[in-house]
Amino acid sequence: MAGALSLPVAEIAVLLGEGKLKARALAEAAIANHERFGAKLMAYSQWAPEHARKCADAADAAFAIGSRAGSLQGIPSSIKDLFGVAGFPTYAGSPKRLPQKFEIDGPVVANLRRQLATVMGKTHMVEFAFGPTGHNAHYGSPRNPWDATAHREPGGSSSGAGVSLCEGSALLAFGTDTAASVRLPAAMTGNAGLKLTKDRWSTEGIVPLSFTFDTPGILARSMADAAFSFAALDPRLGDGFDFLRNVPNGVGGIRIGIADSWFWDGCENGIGEIVRSAIDSLARAGAVMKDQPLPEAREAFAVFAEGGVSAIELRTFLDRELPDWLETTDPVNTPALKNAANLSAREYLTRRLRLLEAAKSAAARFDDVDVIAAPTAMFTPRVLKEAGPEEIWARNRNLVHNLAPANYLALCAATLPVGLDRLGMPVGLQFIAKGGDDERLVAIACAAERALGTPREILGAPPMCKD
Amino acid sequence: MAGALSLPVAEIAVLLGEGKLKARALAEAAIANHERFGAKLMAYSQWAPEHARKCADAADAAFAIGSRAGSLQGIPSSIKDLFGVAGFPTYAGSPKRLPQKFEIDGPVVANLRRQLATVMGKTHMVEFAFGPTGHNAHYGSPRNPWDATAHREPGGSSSGAGVSLCEGSALLAFGTDTAASVRLPAAMTGNAGLKLTKDRWSTEGIVPLSFTFDTPGILARSMADAAFSFAALDPRLGDGFDFLRNVPNGVGGIRIGIADSWFWDGCENGIGEIVRSAIDSLARAGAVMKDQPLPEAREAFAVFAEGGVSAIELRTFLDRELPDWLETTDPVNTPALKNAANLSAREYLTRRLRLLEAAKSAAARFDDVDVIAAPTAMFTPRVLKEAGPEEIWARNRNLVHNLAPANYLALCAATLPVGLDRLGMPVGLQFIAKGGDDERLVAIACAAERALGTPREILGAPPMCKD
Repeated sequence: MAGALSLPVAEIAVLLGEGKLKARALAEAAIANHERFGAKLMAYSQWAPEHARKCADAADAAFAIGSRAGSLQGIPSSIKDLFGVAGFPTYAGSPKRLPQKFEIDGPVVANLRRQLATVMGKTHMVEFAFGPTGHNAHYGSPRNPWDATAHREPGGSSSGAGVSLCEGSALLAFGTDTAASVRLPAAMTGNAGLKLTKDRWSTEGIVPLSFTFDTPGILARSMADAAFSFAALDPRLGDGFDFLRNVPNGVGGIRIGIADSWFWDGCENGIGEIVRSAIDSLARAGAVMKDQPLPEAREAFAVFAEGGVSAIELRTFLDRELPDWLETTDPVNTPALKNAANLSAREYLTRRLRLLEAAKSAAARFDDVDVIAAPTAMFTPRVLKEAGPEEIWARNRNLVHNLAPANYLALCAATLPVGLDRLGMPVGLQFIAKGGDDERLVAIACAAERALGTPREILGAPPMCKD
Repeated sequence: MAGALSLPVAEIAVLLGEGKLKARALAEAAIANHERFGAKLMAYSQWAPEHARKCADAADAAFAIGSRAGSLQGIPSSIKDLFGVAGFPTYAGSPKRLPQKFEIDGPVVANLRRQLATVMGKTHMVEFAFGPTGHNAHYGSPRNPWDATAHREPGGSSSGAGVSLCEGSALLAFGTDTAASVRLPAAMTGNAGLKLTKDRWSTEGIVPLSFTFDTPGILARSMADAAFSFAALDPRLGDGFDFLRNVPNGVGGIRIGIADSWFWDGCENGIGEIVRSAIDSLARAGAVMKDQPLPEAREAFAVFAEGGVSAIELRTFLDRELPDWLETTDPVNTPALKNAANLSAREYLTRRLRLLEAAKSAAARFDDVDVIAAPTAMFTPRVLKEAGPEEIWARNRNLVHNLAPANYLALCAATLPVGLDRLGMPVGLQFIAKGGDDERLVAIACAAERALGTPREILGAPPMCKD
């Protein structure tokens, strides 16, 4: 039943529930995939096949007595090492194990485990989630499986999350998104990604980068899979399946705003054209299109470029909770963390007020559209080479250009793969929606995927993970 | 029908709905009360009888065609001048009129006006709501009507709100609470006060003091009235009247935690004994009592005493939006606003993190109790005399001792009058509840009021507003 891993999670869940598929067989297939493809890819900082087998056996034991702990029972899942997961050490991409208080399940992980999902291990990440390239001076970077010849950026900070999906060792990957960190690695590895509205899901039990903007999120091999896990885990959806049943079959009547040129100018290697072509397909399928500028994104990005709020919020957290870790921070981030100490409260709060004001104004941009569409990343994943800290730092800023505004403007956003660029690397279409409109966002992204085709149909398999 | 003003708001609403009472007659009675008692009390910075008459006539016109815009239709209400109210200038206790963007109805005021409540005017306040005594260097302080011989503090920062209830010119008074500013003036003037959980009600349209901790709130002549308006205005209660019908008739089985000595030691003029005696009455009526320390209150108060977050948040707001107003700030607040500019972002964020941590730990204190009971204010309203800015500043800190912790720990809280202290000034019993437990808090406070007696039954009328 190894082929079962290529089915949608919703269908796998049915097979598991009917006893036609064993969670253990699924876990073994996922383990076999990692053993086959994983050595060069480095998705996991803690690969845990024995733990996964125990999870799967527990799921099977529950199925055998007719017990359904949740829709994700027996579904192989990877978890970014920023999440506390009881029984696993937490490093958060740092060289030293964090204190035990960071090894406690928060609500998202507790929910996942209560549902008897199969936890495959913890995935690699940028140290303290502070950076979007995937770079990590202590451990190196996971490899993007879409280029077999060169080691390209997997995207970050949830750098191992997307890769775990590509290699087939996980069907769902849990990450976090403070400025890009779910959507960028999802897009760069040809997966779907979902960044929820701030506070939609609790960040308890997750090592904080920015308590103002941190959000947990989902990476999955399709938006349908992401929607399935959203429905299974979201505490506000009474019956998640009602939500799934109401996902529209087509995109007819869905109002899609096309973002202004700020989101498009400078896209490289044909990325803009590919995203534009996907949007045109949606228009032909009945979506209602309209130019919809989001000028507040410029202000959000300006605040980011002036230093943003993450550096000082992370610095304060480290000073308070992990002072020893400050001595060994990744050289890319050390100057920003050091300089943050000189920031005045007035300047920090001015940034916050600018963002609050921009967010208020941005909310009104969704009066006439359900979502705003834009490229997820403007740039092709770059070949990793010996780059100095300043060069990587500058790259950070470029990479979050189309992504950080959703966080800074209190919106939610999703990405789905829509093609390969001129270098054969995956391209993502981003839908941005009003804060709190998470259900609508997920439903529209699912409908768009149905209209455009699944990622596997559009992209094929990553060259380094071909059957 | 002037006597109608002394009925509970719920009964008045029924009479209005049945046509047995005219909103205009009610407004005229409220206007007459202000004319009779108000001259010395200075509740209003903008007293607006003509506007009130127009509101009342509109309410009557709607009643006459069988239209019910909301439960508060025709109910005389006062609004703190921190709220934007279209058609009224906003001064926020400052000497200069604020720009027009601060004169727009936010959601709370819009809801109130949509229901065709009768707006009597805007009430006096401490400048920018920054301080709890009621002191205002530009306008003077409203007078506390409970002492006919001396000018005592009315409590602040919603300093005119409670006084407007005492004089009978309003049945509901809308205020804001960032560290004390609804509960303290309510308690000091013998009224009920409700401070909701942060973000339960939007602060849009309200001039910000601390965007982190500002909350809108209600002062009313009884907790029953406060509950009625909460039910009428709260956007989360589908049918507010369902909520009201479910308020328990007795306190049997309600689990009341008694706060630790930190909340009691130092209460003056018999305040502690009076509050304790009210709690004992509730125990005799069937409430389940238990000592329940809230040690996180000390940490919250320590953060407040070290400078808190309001000074720098207000300073940043003024720098950004109202720089000219910084030149004329009340001398009591000028040093704090000046010094705030030297605060580092790290120190500010350390305070925020300390509070977040304390709040998390405080939430668990409500595992075994529904509310924690403590005195609202530890001190008798003081006679106002020529006091220097430093003295008033020191008084600020003392006054918020039992109050700021609810804000800083992300809780909600209510106060109801339970007696007069040795100087004949009102004493408040505070119930503190877990964040988000607003409905339960209101229901318990109502049940307690039913068991103990209404404020008017317990206290009688304020000496300066006796019929």
